[in-house]
Amino acid sequence: MMGLMMDRPLLTTEILKHAVRNYRKTEIVTRTVEGPIHRYTIKDSYKRICQLANALTEMGVKRGDRVGVIGWNTYRQFEMYYAVGGLGAVLHTVNPRLGPENATFVVNHAEDDFLFYDTTFAPLVGAMRPHLKTVKAYCVLTDEANAGEAAKGAETYEELIAGKSDEFAWPEFDENTAVAMCYTSGTTGDPKGVVYSHRALVLQAFSSGLPCGLSLSEGDVFLPVVPMFHVNAWNTPYTCLLTGVTQIFPGPRLDGEGLYELFESEKVTFSAGVPTVWLGLLQYLEKTGKKLSTLKAGMSGGSALPEALVRGYEKYGVVLQQGWGMTEMSPVGTFGALPPEIQALSIDERMPYILKAGRSLPFVDMRLAAEDGTILPHDGEAEGRLQVRGPSIVSSYYKATEPTLTEDGWFDTGDVAIIDEDGFLQITDRSKDVIKTGGEWVSSIDIENAAMLHEGVAQAGVIGVHHPKWQERPLLIVVKAEGKDPSAEEIIEFVKPKLDKIAWPDAVEFVTEIPLGATGKVLKTELRKQFKGYSLPA
Amino acid sequence: MMGLMMDRPLLTTEILKHAVRNYRKTEIVTRTVEGPIHRYTIKDSYKRICQLANALTEMGVKRGDRVGVIGWNTYRQFEMYYAVGGLGAVLHTVNPRLGPENATFVVNHAEDDFLFYDTTFAPLVGAMRPHLKTVKAYCVLTDEANAGEAAKGAETYEELIAGKSDEFAWPEFDENTAVAMCYTSGTTGDPKGVVYSHRALVLQAFSSGLPCGLSLSEGDVFLPVVPMFHVNAWNTPYTCLLTGVTQIFPGPRLDGEGLYELFESEKVTFSAGVPTVWLGLLQYLEKTGKKLSTLKAGMSGGSALPEALVRGYEKYGVVLQQGWGMTEMSPVGTFGALPPEIQALSIDERMPYILKAGRSLPFVDMRLAAEDGTILPHDGEAEGRLQVRGPSIVSSYYKATEPTLTEDGWFDTGDVAIIDEDGFLQITDRSKDVIKTGGEWVSSIDIENAAMLHEGVAQAGVIGVHHPKWQERPLLIVVKAEGKDPSAEEIIEFVKPKLDKIAWPDAVEFVTEIPLGATGKVLKTELRKQFKGYSLPA
Repeated sequence: MMGLMMDRPLLTTEILKHAVRNYRKTEIVTRTVEGPIHRYTIKDSYKRICQLANALTEMGVKRGDRVGVIGWNTYRQFEMYYAVGGLGAVLHTVNPRLGPENATFVVNHAEDDFLFYDTTFAPLVGAMRPHLKTVKAYCVLTDEANAGEAAKGAETYEELIAGKSDEFAWPEFDENTAVAMCYTSGTTGDPKGVVYSHRALVLQAFSSGLPCGLSLSEGDVFLPVVPMFHVNAWNTPYTCLLTGVTQIFPGPRLDGEGLYELFESEKVTFSAGVPTVWLGLLQYLEKTGKKLSTLKAGMSGGSALPEALVRGYEKYGVVLQQGWGMTEMSPVGTFGALPPEIQALSIDERMPYILKAGRSLPFVDMRLAAEDGTILPHDGEAEGRLQVRGPSIVSSYYKATEPTLTEDGWFDTGDVAIIDEDGFLQITDRSKDVIKTGGEWVSSIDIENAAMLHEGVAQAGVIGVHHPKWQERPLLIVVKAEGKDPSAEEIIEFVKPKLDKIAWPDAVEFVTEIPLGATGKVLKTELRKQFKGYSLPA
Repeated sequence: MMGLMMDRPLLTTEILKHAVRNYRKTEIVTRTVEGPIHRYTIKDSYKRICQLANALTEMGVKRGDRVGVIGWNTYRQFEMYYAVGGLGAVLHTVNPRLGPENATFVVNHAEDDFLFYDTTFAPLVGAMRPHLKTVKAYCVLTDEANAGEAAKGAETYEELIAGKSDEFAWPEFDENTAVAMCYTSGTTGDPKGVVYSHRALVLQAFSSGLPCGLSLSEGDVFLPVVPMFHVNAWNTPYTCLLTGVTQIFPGPRLDGEGLYELFESEKVTFSAGVPTVWLGLLQYLEKTGKKLSTLKAGMSGGSALPEALVRGYEKYGVVLQQGWGMTEMSPVGTFGALPPEIQALSIDERMPYILKAGRSLPFVDMRLAAEDGTILPHDGEAEGRLQVRGPSIVSSYYKATEPTLTEDGWFDTGDVAIIDEDGFLQITDRSKDVIKTGGEWVSSIDIENAAMLHEGVAQAGVIGVHHPKWQERPLLIVVKAEGKDPSAEEIIEFVKPKLDKIAWPDAVEFVTEIPLGATGKVLKTELRKQFKGYSLPA
């Protein structure tokens, strides 16, 4: 027996309409690429989104067409999110950090019909253009006055939308229609495309909007440091319109000082970014002695949140929480909101929970699989490959030639994890980074986290290196903190009480830099290349 | 181009699984029909839900079967929500206030295969049984020791589930599958059946769980006074498991004293019910001089929230908010959460917003239609028939012989309303209760609300009566407050400054009782019968 309810699709346009109805005066503020602060309301933005939708239609953008964009977090990219998706076309957010070769690969692979970019990225686009096979027109995200050289062979965004009608009859279509694409910045092999549906992003916005998610509401002011080219800034342009939250887009200035100024002038209450960004801001605060007067909390994701950061921000009255997710998960899988009985504890008692990745959002199933495929219990002890399932999780990479999922329909995250009885997830390692020593698994991340607590350690990376007896043993690679000079022995003694004996690093090597990926993760592949052939004594 | 995301259904079972994973220790507390307090955790409830699912399967409950229940808000009915729906069967919650004739009609119309009931309702079920055409088995919601006469010809619930496995392999099926049914307690004609899908209730739980909805989270303690037989207690058994909120079920004791005791002993932070219930509790507080020590806020719905109640609770530090919805809307359409700039105002400045019905939830489209079908602006002035659209709104009544929706697919609520530019809805009247006087519309509810502010008025109802010149004019019907004796003239003078001249009542009649419907709404049809032939002088 079927329900007798209306067949109404979950489209991102409905989120926009909801915001215009209920939150028309809520502001969207941008530190523009051009420099000045731009400020308007949701109602104003809606008019420009309609203008853009009319302009795109006139340009020939049709349902299913891919529109590429290489841009900073600004109101113009925000407008593209809703206009392109609202038409039934697909916004392909391209990560400029991929570099010209990979960026060209993804634009060609996605078969983008149009490419929009910020002036900053004109040289990148210039290098890509001769190799782009499908792009029919280019558009630079500025006006005539500020375009300069960047507009060569491109129209400007403001010219494009000028004079267009500020009303638009949004089409309705199947909620499983593609709305956006994002390629994983994989450290090996070609980037892989994830194609989001309207349904997936609407459901992700609902989940993230709950109190167990971002828990933001009208009156909150949110600044996403996480880029809009990085899994839709963790879906926040959708979540914030669903909940009526003021958005502050930082444009290109993501350094500690630039962020601090904007946090204070715009009275930001919540932010989200990778640990590197949080570290930059903390260092700025400590150097200048300045205080944060409105920021209450922040979300850290992309790589593990170091304890030192949590404690650093606690002094400023800011609660850092972890989230965990993947490009393949739209992207949030877990949030670190703590239950009240744990929130009531002291910071030391809370710390083990803060350092876990949080609990799953509704409709995100998680399971742990042993190497032989056995499903392991969620008992806080069993460690296995983390596999996930849900309506906002990838079923297949774009143009995949082999299956993306397990035979029974789960997505293998490539992470190794433990889940406790209360649902807290703890990522112990990437499965390919686990050190397999004498038949047991050792987490490289645990060792890195332990080392990071030493005041002489600025960065730490751990890889497995050959050992004649144990097959593999951990090598700890360290960047010394400015002005500090710890010895290898000192660091090893420091980490011992924090680790099981099996995880004690056999050696420490000092380097001046550790290569990081786009989200702040240590690039183990690079470290392995660098230390290829390194061998430990028996 | 379609998205490449997993095809995972929105089933209520997924909400249950989410709660068991993340909130296993959260309590569900019941004041039982038998008397004592029953207390267990979500994890315990899950085991019994599985036992019930196994028992139902053994009883022969198949996908699509209707399982009727006539019960109070208790943990056992809660278990039925998830077990019956989780099987792919349909829980038909029957309103005992329908009386034997209508209750028999709905059970026969829905073709319930099984009927569960609380001992309280054994006499009702006894009266219905000879006339029920499809019920194959009966079950009374208690154990052997407490069943007594009520169990005649029925099994007991505890006997039914005893010894069954506490694990169950939940099936997966289309999210548009029916999960529950509820009949409208229409004041005219036969009750009409609304069939909810899993998708509709999951989306309603997501919307209601947002900060613009109930805004409840872990640590909150919610007591639903609104019955589970009345549109699934406003969907809260789903919303609360989605958000990890503790639920306190009051069983049959809904009087002021009974509720007060439970609010205090269980540290309730939030409640929901019709104005009549809120009034009962307030009267108890005022009579006894007791205080509410944990209750922060409450939701009032079902009929308009009188200003006197808002002000009454303000003295106790409790914020009453209005919600508006219908059985046909799963049920919530709007919530009265106020934006921060309005929350910051004084109670007098806030009052006009509090007395409106709030703003729409996401994915609830609202429009106002004039009598000729013209769509009117949302400008705070235009008044029209309120029509709604969304994925949790009825598309057709069960076994309907005529279309339920307008030709272009909207549901006409039968309410007359105004919507302002900020999205606030104001229900001005039921379209059939509007008084049409000299070509203009007058809201009967406005007059009732104005009269209710007089200390000598306990209840007020307004109907249109024949007038030789103006076709119709308002007649105000009043139940005097205990110990007060206001005159007709006094009341008319009192309401005049609060109303447009056109709405001044022409006469006042005093009665000892005004008939109310199940949700506390004045039954205008009854009043009209009572005052049939009443006529005013020219």
